[in-house]
Amino acid sequence: MSEKVKIAIDAMGGENSPKKIIDGIHISLKSNQENFFYLYGREDLLKKEISKNKIVAQHCEVVNASDLIEDNESPLKAAKRGKESSMWKSIESLKENRSDICLSAGNTGALLVISRLLLKTIEGINKPALAGLWPNQNNMNIVLDLGANIECSEKDLTDFACMGSALFKSLFNNDKPRVSLLNIGLEENKGNDTLKKTFSILKDNKIKNFEFLGYIEGNHIMDGDVDVIITDGFTGNIALKTAEGTANFITKNLKASLNKLSILLSYSSLKKFKEKLDPRKYNGAIFLGLQKPVVKSHGSTDAIGFAHSINVCHKIVKTNLIEKIESNLITVDH
Amino acid sequence: MSEKVKIAIDAMGGENSPKKIIDGIHISLKSNQENFFYLYGREDLLKKEISKNKIVAQHCEVVNASDLIEDNESPLKAAKRGKESSMWKSIESLKENRSDICLSAGNTGALLVISRLLLKTIEGINKPALAGLWPNQNNMNIVLDLGANIECSEKDLTDFACMGSALFKSLFNNDKPRVSLLNIGLEENKGNDTLKKTFSILKDNKIKNFEFLGYIEGNHIMDGDVDVIITDGFTGNIALKTAEGTANFITKNLKASLNKLSILLSYSSLKKFKEKLDPRKYNGAIFLGLQKPVVKSHGSTDAIGFAHSINVCHKIVKTNLIEKIESNLITVDH
Repeated sequence: MSEKVKIAIDAMGGENSPKKIIDGIHISLKSNQENFFYLYGREDLLKKEISKNKIVAQHCEVVNASDLIEDNESPLKAAKRGKESSMWKSIESLKENRSDICLSAGNTGALLVISRLLLKTIEGINKPALAGLWPNQNNMNIVLDLGANIECSEKDLTDFACMGSALFKSLFNNDKPRVSLLNIGLEENKGNDTLKKTFSILKDNKIKNFEFLGYIEGNHIMDGDVDVIITDGFTGNIALKTAEGTANFITKNLKASLNKLSILLSYSSLKKFKEKLDPRKYNGAIFLGLQKPVVKSHGSTDAIGFAHSINVCHKIVKTNLIEKIESNLITVDH
Repeated sequence: MSEKVKIAIDAMGGENSPKKIIDGIHISLKSNQENFFYLYGREDLLKKEISKNKIVAQHCEVVNASDLIEDNESPLKAAKRGKESSMWKSIESLKENRSDICLSAGNTGALLVISRLLLKTIEGINKPALAGLWPNQNNMNIVLDLGANIECSEKDLTDFACMGSALFKSLFNNDKPRVSLLNIGLEENKGNDTLKKTFSILKDNKIKNFEFLGYIEGNHIMDGDVDVIITDGFTGNIALKTAEGTANFITKNLKASLNKLSILLSYSSLKKFKEKLDPRKYNGAIFLGLQKPVVKSHGSTDAIGFAHSINVCHKIVKTNLIEKIESNLITVDH
């Protein structure tokens, strides 16, 4: 039997935690028993919850953390006062090599700040970035940065290309991911100076451990022709949230229209449609560029969504993502 | 009878022109005969097309323009060589007061460059901006800039707030539009320096000819709680195209799922859903900040979409948009 992946979980973060965390672990164990979970949070609460679930109890250990970081807390304040929190303690276990990866459904900003504070960056990386999974016509692609860095240089964007393509290789067992830069047009002279400089660096990447396809526009993110899409954290965050808002708007209006037909349709072909677009399948944003991997689950996802983010964690560790990033990095000239 | 609005139309721009232009005019005339159209383009083609439609023939005059600007032509090249084009001639007629407004479904970049070249900016405005209509839960809102200016200062963004709220007043007969700044969070300290400075200028706007609601995130653009959303042209273009791509992705997958049920549903409640989301209703981006108004129809829209953009032109002239912009501008301190 191969060694288990040790996942440190901030069991207090996000809506309906810790219950959804325990349920999510239970779901993940049905298909994969090669993980062991360290659950950080209030011991009394966690033990009570776990006592209800014998299967989960066999695959986890509770580690007490008396405090918790609130969802609406300022990240900097949280980082200052949160040393006893479940989030801090779970990240700290990574630093001290007691776990392989950390997973939290809590405050995103706080997770980024505390991870950055406790974990060193990979040599050569200035700015760690948040990468997310987007559905597309074929399966899914990766977009980064989704909000960790408001302003990015050509060096940062080039690093994002190296890190994002390593992540794509890890998650989808793909040898040569196709990488594009998000821009407002396809011609080489489009966009700001940073984009133009990044374009020319990526175009000249001689080792070719990923394929650079040039610029991509927002309306083609979901076409499935590109695997990794690179942008600064401001633009990426706006794009992600605009896509989310558009999807909500359409499905809301669709639901309102379908009211009378919903019974008829609930078991019909619309089921496939719902499944393909189920946001829980894409749950799990990955904080890249630190020497240890940290994964963020959506705060409002449910147990099924949380189980998906556990799968992401498993793959990242098993495929040695950090090594893949390091070997990508040295082959690109800045 | 009130004086007619004189609309100069680049009748050669966009897909299926000039046929869709003539058909669009025909549709618009069914509900509004208070427009007169100057059609710029190849006289022989246009006269032949118009001879088939007596109603349109009564409301328009053909003006010969021997050349045309291609959709994929570089804007700067087009501006250099395009003096005999239908686009150039139609904008020129505005400059020379032979028309009140110009409408084109042609090359967007060329339209912006040539308009800027021929028409003066409103006093105090450095950067004209492209504003578009977005559907929302209540009706629609305005977003600008959608791509005219990649980099914007706090002065530019403040001007966009003044121009956008004037446009909203013109189109929707609303006295006090609600204005928000697009950002990646709601707290005052979020975003880059330019956004923070713009926030504080707009917050201090004492005359209050619009209501400033602070920041808005991408996922709330379509909620219907805001009338005018301000952003730089890079971010606005990314947001617009990402929303477009997301909507296409969802409706494509929905259609694929509905295949077998489509006959059953085609006259059912899904009709309302389709109508609400029909992009033709939102057709017509407005180039704001010049002393004369220029409207861009989507190149790939059909006659119904083009008729909607004619309605936008009519409202803009009838409600004195340019005066509204001027009176908004002087009341905001920079």
